[in-house]
Amino acid sequence: MGVVLNMEGSKGGPASVDRLVGLTRSDMARVNELILSKAGSDVELIPELAKHLISSGGKRLRPMITIAAAQMFGYEGENHVKLATSVEFMHTATLLHDDVVDESDLRRGRKTARMIWGNQASVLVGDFLLGQAFRMMVDVGSLEALDILSTAASVIAEGEVMQLGVSKNLETTEDEYLQVIKAKTAALFSAAAEVGPVIAQASRNDRAALRSFGTNLGLAFQLVDDALDYGGKASELGKNVGDDFREGKVTLPVILAYRRGTSEERAFWKSAIEENNCDDAALEKAIGLLARHNAIADTINRARHFGEIARDALAPLEDSEQKDALFDVIDFCISRVV
Amino acid sequence: MGVVLNMEGSKGGPASVDRLVGLTRSDMARVNELILSKAGSDVELIPELAKHLISSGGKRLRPMITIAAAQMFGYEGENHVKLATSVEFMHTATLLHDDVVDESDLRRGRKTARMIWGNQASVLVGDFLLGQAFRMMVDVGSLEALDILSTAASVIAEGEVMQLGVSKNLETTEDEYLQVIKAKTAALFSAAAEVGPVIAQASRNDRAALRSFGTNLGLAFQLVDDALDYGGKASELGKNVGDDFREGKVTLPVILAYRRGTSEERAFWKSAIEENNCDDAALEKAIGLLARHNAIADTINRARHFGEIARDALAPLEDSEQKDALFDVIDFCISRVV
Repeated sequence: MGVVLNMEGSKGGPASVDRLVGLTRSDMARVNELILSKAGSDVELIPELAKHLISSGGKRLRPMITIAAAQMFGYEGENHVKLATSVEFMHTATLLHDDVVDESDLRRGRKTARMIWGNQASVLVGDFLLGQAFRMMVDVGSLEALDILSTAASVIAEGEVMQLGVSKNLETTEDEYLQVIKAKTAALFSAAAEVGPVIAQASRNDRAALRSFGTNLGLAFQLVDDALDYGGKASELGKNVGDDFREGKVTLPVILAYRRGTSEERAFWKSAIEENNCDDAALEKAIGLLARHNAIADTINRARHFGEIARDALAPLEDSEQKDALFDVIDFCISRVV
Repeated sequence: MGVVLNMEGSKGGPASVDRLVGLTRSDMARVNELILSKAGSDVELIPELAKHLISSGGKRLRPMITIAAAQMFGYEGENHVKLATSVEFMHTATLLHDDVVDESDLRRGRKTARMIWGNQASVLVGDFLLGQAFRMMVDVGSLEALDILSTAASVIAEGEVMQLGVSKNLETTEDEYLQVIKAKTAALFSAAAEVGPVIAQASRNDRAALRSFGTNLGLAFQLVDDALDYGGKASELGKNVGDDFREGKVTLPVILAYRRGTSEERAFWKSAIEENNCDDAALEKAIGLLARHNAIADTINRARHFGEIARDALAPLEDSEQKDALFDVIDFCISRVV
């Protein structure tokens, strides 16, 4: 299963975020400290649950993007650390609520918080982290950054609600689906990237460039995630192959296979997705249909398209290590499909 | 059942919020418009669910307090309307998440949103309303008001998590319980009251007065709510008598009766609250024990104590119609127990 892509990192080796990690290392150390301190509370359950999430080995891609985007425009202060932490808290709050909404058992190969502490704690600690995110933004004091991030918070929630409607609907068009993931995934990448130039008081054009980079990177990221769900290795991805299928999620691979399929095939998809006939045999059949119609490969082609837009968004900016590191991120996001 | 109090409104009649309603009428009309417009979304489910909440007949006490508190210091702008709407959205988001956490079926006598649209939509629309609340605050542009309201958002969530820990624990002390309700209920009343003088650029003392008024009013409000749960009329209160009991919630009446009870009585409470033996017969017995130990009357006495503090907080302020209207609110909150 899975699709092998020949993506190359800028050093000729496999694409990786090593360069981004290196450039942001010392700032990210401060982000990690701030995460621990702002997830602190006298209410024991909060730091306990937060520690679980924090140690669960996410890549911290979004806050690293905020840090790099601020560095890129010569920012020399401490506020990028606070905003990066806010971004990560917003992301974590979303994950907590998502796992409740999706009734997920595993996240990155580990039990989800809701499986250990219950749905109640997951909803409420998510609310707490969101509150803390806003407090840090307020502490930064930039109304522009506040505007960008609070708008993202609304848009993400709106996207999640939109997804509920799409969830079992096989007639969803590709356009409608893109609208959902633009809201639920790309909006945070976009905000994470844009607040960097904003606090560095960079130009309007620079802000727009980073915003566009973030949006398109986010779209590419989500599409690759959708593809991986039908072909990645559970251990690497931290979720099981077929999770989306079993949850009846209509993602781009399914949309393509359904639209390209015969009427018999469409009947199969309806039975699987709409009526929950999604056992292992059905998953195997689904994966076969996806292959027959090039649905995975074309999902990745679509991702590559958005990756190109992200790349061109950054193109006119002055060369810098940060710019190269962000190019790497695009390659990395797409080359995850191995 | 129930406890009759001889509270008098300032005109000698029964206490009511009529004066507050009158003073804030035209501003509240704009709050209501803003609520409808900011709960709007192309994602149909959002306005649909929001309309359900909006039409469910809450008194809008918190936004009226924000409006009156701004008027009181001569505020002449439009931002109080936006902040009042933010406050109401924060409150609504909390209710949506609470109903999911408590698995409640009824709220103000009507089916809860989660019973109609499911837990998923309730969690996500709550997140959306919270995001919209922050966007409106950002739009107002007062970092002080943002600080107050974002801190309240964190504190409320922290209080809700704290309550999970208290929920089935009969050894909870009165102090611990007060800490919970100070966070989960009083923090929003406090913030709602304080942002009025903040945007009116009133003095530090005026801000502190309104903050203290809000905190203590909130405590009184919650304690009366706790008392009503064991003696109010479901139709008026919009919840059923004994809801807290059946959910195993440890509230002040129970804390008092438990601490004052015999060892046999304590065994009964343990069985009822900790082991869910809370059928109608148990509820009847519980109500008998609460009466025997004056637990309801003393809960109301505690509420009256906080009402007095709220009153004294406002006392030094210049006389105004708004001040009288806020005094009425204190009387009203306590005299709900009829």
